[in-house]
Amino acid sequence: MTLKEWQEYRQRMNEKILGSGHLGIRRFFALDHHAYEAGALSPKVKELLGLVASLVLRCDDCITYHIIRCHQEGVTREEFLEAFNVALVVGGSITIPHLRRAFERLEEVEAAGRSEAAS
Amino acid sequence: MTLKEWQEYRQRMNEKILGSGHLGIRRFFALDHHAYEAGALSPKVKELLGLVASLVLRCDDCITYHIIRCHQEGVTREEFLEAFNVALVVGGSITIPHLRRAFERLEEVEAAGRSEAAS
Amino acid sequence: MTLKEWQEYRQRMNEKILGSGHLGIRRFFALDHHAYEAGALSPKVKELLGLVASLVLRCDDCITYHIIRCHQEGVTREEFLEAFNVALVVGGSITIPHLRRAFERLEEVEAAGRSEAAS
Amino acid sequence: MTLKEWQEYRQRMNEKILGSGHLGIRRFFALDHHAYEAGALSPKVKELLGLVASLVLRCDDCITYHIIRCHQEGVTREEFLEAFNVALVVGGSITIPHLRRAFERLEEVEAAGRSEAAS
Amino acid sequence: MTLKEWQEYRQRMNEKILGSGHLGIRRFFALDHHAYEAGALSPKVKELLGLVASLVLRCDDCITYHIIRCHQEGVTREEFLEAFNVALVVGGSITIPHLRRAFERLEEVEAAGRSEAAS
Amino acid sequence: MTLKEWQEYRQRMNEKILGSGHLGIRRFFALDHHAYEAGALSPKVKELLGLVASLVLRCDDCITYHIIRCHQEGVTREEFLEAFNVALVVGGSITIPHLRRAFERLEEVEAAGRSEAAS
Repeated sequence: MTLKEWQEYRQRMNEKILGSGHLGIRRFFALDHHAYEAGALSPKVKELLGLVASLVLRCDDCITYHIIRCHQEGVTREEFLEAFNVALVVGGSITIPHLRRAFERLEEVEAAGRSEAAS
Repeated sequence: MTLKEWQEYRQRMNEKILGSGHLGIRRFFALDHHAYEAGALSPKVKELLGLVASLVLRCDDCITYHIIRCHQEGVTREEFLEAFNVALVVGGSITIPHLRRAFERLEEVEAAGRSEAAS
Repeated sequence: MTLKEWQEYRQRMNEKILGSGHLGIRRFFALDHHAYEAGALSPKVKELLGLVASLVLRCDDCITYHIIRCHQEGVTREEFLEAFNVALVVGGSITIPHLRRAFERLEEVEAAGRSEAAS
Repeated sequence: MTLKEWQEYRQRMNEKILGSGHLGIRRFFALDHHAYEAGALSPKVKELLGLVASLVLRCDDCITYHIIRCHQEGVTREEFLEAFNVALVVGGSITIPHLRRAFERLEEVEAAGRSEAAS
Repeated sequence: MTLKEWQEYRQRMNEKILGSGHLGIRRFFALDHHAYEAGALSPKVKELLGLVASLVLRCDDCITYHIIRCHQEGVTREEFLEAFNVALVVGGSITIPHLRRAFERLEEVEAAGRSEAAS
Repeated sequence: MTLKEWQEYRQRMNEKILGSGHLGIRRFFALDHHAYEAGALSPKVKELLGLVASLVLRCDDCITYHIIRCHQEGVTREEFLEAFNVALVVGGSITIPHLRRAFERLEEVEAAGRSEAAS
């Protein structure tokens, strides 16, 4: 699945979930959104927290989401590598397949950024 | 187990593990140590990454360790609360018992800091 | 993978596993089957237990299976939403990608039911 | 830790967490509370969902909490055993140590109920 | 909890579980027992498999059990260290607190063996 | 994804990760490699440990990798079945979807071995 397809699927299904009329689920999604907003910690640090949590819990979709958001918050490649390394040490070799896909996504996100900048 | 007892147990057993003569295990411990050193990300941010990873993976000992280290790196109570909140949202209510113990440890660490400052 | 393809793959591979001649594995599959049969708790409640366990453990195939079975046992959309909400609160935002796919599967299962009813 | 000590510790630390002034955390605790209220599914079924989720995720404190609540909602010993069995089959032998402690807690909860009824 | 207390608790609660009258649970315990019996793989190799699985899943009671059984099957200290190392690499630093307790248990098991041999 | 495509993707992304210039990540990959080399335990036993750890942690890519390596080390079908059974009992029914894919991969690996032997 390309990054663009992933984003469309995510948005389409989130709309179905939020449109399902369950108040508890809607509120959970709102809490999830607010957790990464600026406060005592910056959005950049919070997105890095979300990225490392997603890596050690081994959730590819969550990793993709936080790579996109980290990139938007200005996380550099060197910073990504250090966050990946923390996750790898904490979570062990079982995270490596997710790290491979994370690298691929990071390249897609960087390429999309460059193509946007060029246009 | 008090914070002090925990620290003594940790140090005593780490010495046994490192003294066991297994090169791979020694190297792993070294990698673990280096992962949190200053680099593209600061030790403070890296310790926060370690703390949130430990909370979502629900490891009380790891949480205690990173609370101590975060406190040493100057993480404020407001910053701790925001990191706890990210972990709670990512990891769900199953992390709440660990959050209770994290709050208790944080109070111990803060009290130890105050008593040290007073002397 | 469509619901139909998923069911065919599941059945084909289960036959291979059961045909492999390992008694322990065969017995495990039998225990798994019996665990959801009527007893002190109804099959409907047991399938809901299986669904929520599958969501918090984040296993898409297991979620698909229990959505099919819950639907057969008469679980309504409102009941599905409440079970999803319990799983989301217990398991946290890391379960959201699985919830998106669960919603998609639920729509497929409901559509298959309607098409069957219409014919 | 006895059941009573566990309940006191839980209440004391929950008050500290809720008193910490973090809105997101307070809201999460509210969502958690509401998830088990009567709706399309009964509190009894929802507490059973919480119990099985806690068993497969192997959280002793969560198991204790849901055993207390299930008992209050009238879950019988036969129903507990069937829920335990679903959790054991889904989660495997790694859940057995938690099942041992769950049995112990269930006996404590039943004994507390009898002593209350007798007085 | 000493090794002896742990063994007594385990046996007492297993008897309660097996005496509870639930056929599925009894059968699961039998399957669990048979999984480690001699077959195409030796009990020694199977207990090592159980030990590493317990370490990466981070279950202290399961680790204790398989350390006892591995020791009975003649696993040497060097073999224990290599199995610990595989688990550490696969499961990451989050397994380290369990490794500390595993080392402590291993010393208890070795000491109990020596004291038995001496008498 | 066929076995061949999987191997090419794995190799291509590993090269990117190792070429990223992060010393900690490179060292982790080296530790991971050395953990399975001959020592007090044979590579065959170590690969079986890696396989069972991968099954209970439910990582399809890791399972595929260790099936390939186990097959190279001469693990027979009967031995694979016994290792699968240990993983199934420890990890529970939640591992079954991974067991289905493991069986499929094992057949691919055996077929590739036969076709190589024939040429």
